[in-house]
Amino acid sequence: MAADGEVVEKTQEEKDAIKAAREARKAEKERLKAEKKAKKAAAAAAKEAAERIEEVTYLDYGEQDNYQTMGDFARIMSRSRTGRDFCNVADLGNVHKPGETLWLRGRLHSIRVKGGSCFLVLRQDSFHTVQATFFKDKENPEAPKKMLKYLKSLTVESIIDIEGTLVEAQVKSCSIQDVELAIGRIYAVSKADAMLPFLVEDAARSEEEVDASQGTDRPFPRLGQELRLDNRWMDLRAPANNAIMRIQSAICQLFRESLYAQGFCEIHTPKLIAGESESGAGVFTTDYFGSEACLAQSPQLYKQMAISSDLTRVFEVAPVFRAENSNTRRHLCEFTGLDLEMAINDHYMETLEVIHTMFKHIFNGLESRWAKELAVIREQYASEPVTFTEEPCVLHWPEGIAMLEDAGFDTGDGMSDLTGAMELALGAAVKEKYGTDFFMLDKYPSSIRPFYTMPDPEDSRFSNSYDIFIRGQEICSGAQRCHDPDLVLEILAQKGIEMGDGLKTYVESFRHGVCPHAGAGISLGLGYASSLE
Amino acid sequence: MAADGEVVEKTQEEKDAIKAAREARKAEKERLKAEKKAKKAAAAAAKEAAERIEEVTYLDYGEQDNYQTMGDFARIMSRSRTGRDFCNVADLGNVHKPGETLWLRGRLHSIRVKGGSCFLVLRQDSFHTVQATFFKDKENPEAPKKMLKYLKSLTVESIIDIEGTLVEAQVKSCSIQDVELAIGRIYAVSKADAMLPFLVEDAARSEEEVDASQGTDRPFPRLGQELRLDNRWMDLRAPANNAIMRIQSAICQLFRESLYAQGFCEIHTPKLIAGESESGAGVFTTDYFGSEACLAQSPQLYKQMAISSDLTRVFEVAPVFRAENSNTRRHLCEFTGLDLEMAINDHYMETLEVIHTMFKHIFNGLESRWAKELAVIREQYASEPVTFTEEPCVLHWPEGIAMLEDAGFDTGDGMSDLTGAMELALGAAVKEKYGTDFFMLDKYPSSIRPFYTMPDPEDSRFSNSYDIFIRGQEICSGAQRCHDPDLVLEILAQKGIEMGDGLKTYVESFRHGVCPHAGAGISLGLGYASSLE
Repeated sequence: MAADGEVVEKTQEEKDAIKAAREARKAEKERLKAEKKAKKAAAAAAKEAAERIEEVTYLDYGEQDNYQTMGDFARIMSRSRTGRDFCNVADLGNVHKPGETLWLRGRLHSIRVKGGSCFLVLRQDSFHTVQATFFKDKENPEAPKKMLKYLKSLTVESIIDIEGTLVEAQVKSCSIQDVELAIGRIYAVSKADAMLPFLVEDAARSEEEVDASQGTDRPFPRLGQELRLDNRWMDLRAPANNAIMRIQSAICQLFRESLYAQGFCEIHTPKLIAGESESGAGVFTTDYFGSEACLAQSPQLYKQMAISSDLTRVFEVAPVFRAENSNTRRHLCEFTGLDLEMAINDHYMETLEVIHTMFKHIFNGLESRWAKELAVIREQYASEPVTFTEEPCVLHWPEGIAMLEDAGFDTGDGMSDLTGAMELALGAAVKEKYGTDFFMLDKYPSSIRPFYTMPDPEDSRFSNSYDIFIRGQEICSGAQRCHDPDLVLEILAQKGIEMGDGLKTYVESFRHGVCPHAGAGISLGLGYASSLE
Repeated sequence: MAADGEVVEKTQEEKDAIKAAREARKAEKERLKAEKKAKKAAAAAAKEAAERIEEVTYLDYGEQDNYQTMGDFARIMSRSRTGRDFCNVADLGNVHKPGETLWLRGRLHSIRVKGGSCFLVLRQDSFHTVQATFFKDKENPEAPKKMLKYLKSLTVESIIDIEGTLVEAQVKSCSIQDVELAIGRIYAVSKADAMLPFLVEDAARSEEEVDASQGTDRPFPRLGQELRLDNRWMDLRAPANNAIMRIQSAICQLFRESLYAQGFCEIHTPKLIAGESESGAGVFTTDYFGSEACLAQSPQLYKQMAISSDLTRVFEVAPVFRAENSNTRRHLCEFTGLDLEMAINDHYMETLEVIHTMFKHIFNGLESRWAKELAVIREQYASEPVTFTEEPCVLHWPEGIAMLEDAGFDTGDGMSDLTGAMELALGAAVKEKYGTDFFMLDKYPSSIRPFYTMPDPEDSRFSNSYDIFIRGQEICSGAQRCHDPDLVLEILAQKGIEMGDGLKTYVESFRHGVCPHAGAGISLGLGYASSLE
């Protein structure tokens, strides 16, 4: 044995044993570390798997009760038909009662996810809205986490599908107020960018509301026209703007309904023509395989030739083109014209009666059959229903001039066209005197009407022509036409208009027999729709 | 007293007496001559006065019983209203019974004056005709002479007013066969030139009738297309041509009726646009105040953006412009397009069903509500009603190709567009196999469809697109559209199409959420109307 202080050198064996022990400890440590890491990774993977929201194949979603109750649909490419019925928001609470489970597709109007709850609003057809809700389930706290995470990821304006159960509720901010939807499943059909050019609710505010907010802590943004037009599809999602499009459709529908009922037939006249269709206004031209073609400024000459063709009552709804470089809302380079032309027996008053009947049908039809759309428009742009008389309210030019003189206007020799201000004043005076927004001013001076206008039989300084007004806004212009070819030639010469080939053909058509006729042109958008603003 | 032979000179008195006697005889002779002349002049004046046919003031004709029962009306300039009721030719014999005296206004279709009788045919709305007659009265032989003289002066195609009494008759050559009108009074409203470019009856004959007459003594003239088009208002007076215009109107009316009923709304998209609306076909351009504008080749991009605007089902009836310099009846530089576009839930078959419902409404509506017009057209251009299936008859591309191979066509790799001959053959084969004139060919190869077409989900060489045929004539083309902006960009790159600003805006609109959607475009005139020919 070695004494104290004696240094005993370790044998090689001892050394090896120590080293091995040390390495074993190290290995064990690393093993434990790796094990811990693996466990952590496994836990993380498990957590991620639990929370992952996979893309959902649209067709699978019938089987998703045991699967995924939320997610983005893969692009809908018509793989097959689900036969699923989607409901209309407008039908909730009436056709569909509380307790019913149903599917809705619509646009995500707004969404708020906070803590364990989510409130969202689904919008359809721009102005039908319903609230949908989702709440954390205390008995099963894990499952809803994933749903809330998905709901948080949804962007407004996305198209989404919701399956949910109708429950009774009181929701003031939606069009559907007495029911809401308890969300069961929710999927995105088409996701909107998170960054939108503007919010639809900002596009939907009235000027008054925006004005009133300017002094407050939270002034509403004022959207410029350019921004709106650059994103027209967004602007048209605002309820009033969307409804204006539907009202324009309705005006055309009612226009046609009334004219079909009065024996009219629709024509489609050429828009690419060889010469100008009207004198006066500018014309767009295009190269037509080496020769020059004009864009029709109106169907005037063609609709008259339709009368020569034994189509005795015709109308057209079509674009007209005017190369007028002026930026007023009463001058557009392209607008939709509603034109009509008809044979008359002995007086153009027959035509004014047809037109009056037609406008009454439009006014009554809009207020009854499109009441919802009008209400929506009037929320953003206040207006009252148009007042009108049962029989046409027709003023003659001298009476109109006298009313303007009474209203303080200097009308000179009373033979010049009315200014916009005069028209508005006349509208006010007529409303005062006759109690109607809608009236006709007849017998315009010949000098301010086109060459194809029939002169007054007693005094050729005046003519058998009329404008029609709503609230002092001209919405329609028309006349008895001159169906006598020699008289047309005389007037053309008087007005110093040169006859191109198109005009020669037009005059020629009257030499083969033609009924006396009268007509009118209305501009959509410049007309009733703009008078709603 | 003087002796024989003695010359006794006459006294001056005697000479004067002889001269006076001679002059008296001469004067008496001249007086008699003048008297005779005056009598003759008076007789001539009386005769002329009796025969003179003066212009008649339109308004006076209520008082013409003691006055003039015939004549040209002075130009009708709406002096006042007569309140006179004109009857419809179509109502004669049913609404109006024999014995009734009534007024008709119409076109002088034909007239024959011979001896003491006149037979004329009055035409209304191009295909309603009635015979009117006038006969010399033996008890009062002078009065009718003037009438017969006036009747002789009338030119065909003039617009005339007749007051007459309905009498029973048998007239084979008119649409009104069991009554005719005994003329009481007759006036010309608008006289046609005696020299017409052609007669309406010549424009109204079928090719077969003209062909058959060529070997005979009296061959019918064959009117060239140019002559017809140069006098289009005359050509449209031919019953079939006139009825085709009314059928075109009817097609649009039925198209809209069905789409309104299926929740659609009408839009009016711009025709003057900044860039091309479609690639491929040529485009007309115009100077737009210093920059270049294009005429829209279709409303395609706009109607899709309407879907983005929450107008979920839209249609448009409007002109479209294609600068294609080819003279076939299937390529027009301007035609009326009937377009529709709609959001779909899960499959574009939803759209095909909407279209099928719409076409059924058109086919049934035309045959029932426009039966008269169709009958008139079929007299000149023979055709049968379109046969169709109750549910859509949809062929997939491979089936169509197989049927063509069976019919002896070499379809190559089966991925090229069908030729006109193939389409006709396919129409015949489908009629044979499925008994329908009307069918849909679905799943066209992607390579021959526009960039905005949704590819087939299983095989992107094909697409979710279809053409619709009547008797092998393509009348409609459509597809599910690609509503995924990134996929549109991918396809644009594949097809090597450069994106202008218009296209950028279009793709952008899909980034703010959009429903899957599908639609179609139909061309009026190139479509059903031309298949009637």
